[in-house]
Amino acid sequence: MGSVTGFQQAPPWEVTRWFNTEHPLTLTDLAGEVVVLEAFQMLCPGCVSHGLPLAQRIARTFAGEVKVIGLHTVFEHHAAMTPVSLEAFLFEYRVNFPVGVDAHEQDGGVPVTMARYGLRGTPSLVMIDRAGRIRHSLFGHADELTVGAALARLIDEPRPAPG
Amino acid sequence: MGSVTGFQQAPPWEVTRWFNTEHPLTLTDLAGEVVVLEAFQMLCPGCVSHGLPLAQRIARTFAGEVKVIGLHTVFEHHAAMTPVSLEAFLFEYRVNFPVGVDAHEQDGGVPVTMARYGLRGTPSLVMIDRAGRIRHSLFGHADELTVGAALARLIDEPRPAPG
Amino acid sequence: MGSVTGFQQAPPWEVTRWFNTEHPLTLTDLAGEVVVLEAFQMLCPGCVSHGLPLAQRIARTFAGEVKVIGLHTVFEHHAAMTPVSLEAFLFEYRVNFPVGVDAHEQDGGVPVTMARYGLRGTPSLVMIDRAGRIRHSLFGHADELTVGAALARLIDEPRPAPG
Amino acid sequence: MGSVTGFQQAPPWEVTRWFNTEHPLTLTDLAGEVVVLEAFQMLCPGCVSHGLPLAQRIARTFAGEVKVIGLHTVFEHHAAMTPVSLEAFLFEYRVNFPVGVDAHEQDGGVPVTMARYGLRGTPSLVMIDRAGRIRHSLFGHADELTVGAALARLIDEPRPAPG
Repeated sequence: MGSVTGFQQAPPWEVTRWFNTEHPLTLTDLAGEVVVLEAFQMLCPGCVSHGLPLAQRIARTFAGEVKVIGLHTVFEHHAAMTPVSLEAFLFEYRVNFPVGVDAHEQDGGVPVTMARYGLRGTPSLVMIDRAGRIRHSLFGHADELTVGAALARLIDEPRPAPG
Repeated sequence: MGSVTGFQQAPPWEVTRWFNTEHPLTLTDLAGEVVVLEAFQMLCPGCVSHGLPLAQRIARTFAGEVKVIGLHTVFEHHAAMTPVSLEAFLFEYRVNFPVGVDAHEQDGGVPVTMARYGLRGTPSLVMIDRAGRIRHSLFGHADELTVGAALARLIDEPRPAPG
Repeated sequence: MGSVTGFQQAPPWEVTRWFNTEHPLTLTDLAGEVVVLEAFQMLCPGCVSHGLPLAQRIARTFAGEVKVIGLHTVFEHHAAMTPVSLEAFLFEYRVNFPVGVDAHEQDGGVPVTMARYGLRGTPSLVMIDRAGRIRHSLFGHADELTVGAALARLIDEPRPAPG
Repeated sequence: MGSVTGFQQAPPWEVTRWFNTEHPLTLTDLAGEVVVLEAFQMLCPGCVSHGLPLAQRIARTFAGEVKVIGLHTVFEHHAAMTPVSLEAFLFEYRVNFPVGVDAHEQDGGVPVTMARYGLRGTPSLVMIDRAGRIRHSLFGHADELTVGAALARLIDEPRPAPG
């Protein structure tokens, strides 16, 4: 099938706190896996009504095949969306996959990881392949047929030989 | 049509902070008006998906006829739903009607006004008539035809003569 | 409260066949009742997704207070929406209230009753008061709070003295 | 990737009339293509609310990659769902892909093609691979992520060498 080229290597995550995981997670830990990174803000209506429910369906439908990771990328109302608020939010909305809090420079706007990934806003759904490359980055309302198709193709790619 | 009897006088609101209003609001200020009190928590999924959108539709449909007032009745995850978080929530979800933060005894569970009204949970929709009495108190998913009918009847009742 | 004036008397229905009723229905039979007339076509997508479900909710919510009557007002695709097709449609969609088939002049477009009521299309929801007058005629997507309020007011009007 | 074995060859379609295509269609004509067969009845509520909208989204999302074919498999209310009614239905619901009317034995229940495919009811979504084999047959409410994934895999299979 030839090799897939021209895709950006997914930058490392800069996370200040993790939920729903006993250990901090890194892309290195997940090497060889297909990863879906769901960037959201807990007070973003489109994230609550569409982005997170889709991520939850992905986690259920592709259990064992795709690792779904949430990234809380707060770029506005910083004081309103602290980790203590996020924790209650995740509990109430039954978000069970690991969620990291994206790091901030001081009180700055766009957080560190969000900037590294060049995301335009929330919700954003980023698909990372087994070789750790960004293959798709979707902003806004994602089409489920398209997402299902893209994930199947990433799942079916061979795991790269260990480095 | 005769008099309506046997209904509880609506207890006063114990509010520590108001949003979307320049002055604190009391039932006395609203005497003679039909009032809808929407009790909610910003991290309660049913409030976000149903309770608040219904309250917003009531405010639009019965503009000038019904006063819609939100009451943030936090009885769990207190530290997660502070006024600063609520303010961002109201902005993001475009809640424009006045919202009061229900007072707490220390760090206690059910807040003061919620207890006075005997509410079972959130969302709850309370309809108060022109004479300041609780006429309906609905917990959970409210039926819109029923709510519309009840409000029309309260609107059509005569204003009581000033005491 | 004074008398309500200036409303058109609801024209008689010209129905060629009835479903869900043992006897043909006329406005005269229903004198003194609040009547909701739901004009629809079985192949009209907006009728299937919104108009008829609303009529069904009205029939349930105001059981014993409002008579809901369907009127199959076919003005296009006449051969496609015959009574035999309508009968299966009503069964499959669990429409239980009485439904009349509006009469046609020859193969003409707008059927007789629909023309008499001046309806613009389907779905249309017509509210008829206890005195047999058209009080509201809504075309398209009807707002449930508004419909609930209007029906409550019609229900609360006194039955006229028999003429 | 090795060969896929153990799947039933899709039986031929027994169609009495076609819509939305100038010529009758056969599986032989479509050899080498990925085909989605959407079995429906025009008066089946689940087909109208879920099955057909999904088939329409598949046709749009995978335009040029998947052939979507409707099959009108009437097994009840035969007189109510004649081709003339179906034609109006397809127009009103903007179903643009080819639709065939499944043949009946006399006035019998399950039509010929539906029986050959062993379908349990409507809506059913059948996916046929490039080699003409039934790979998936889903009855009822189909999950979009799963359908998208399955189609991607069928699309990516090589066209078989002409026999």
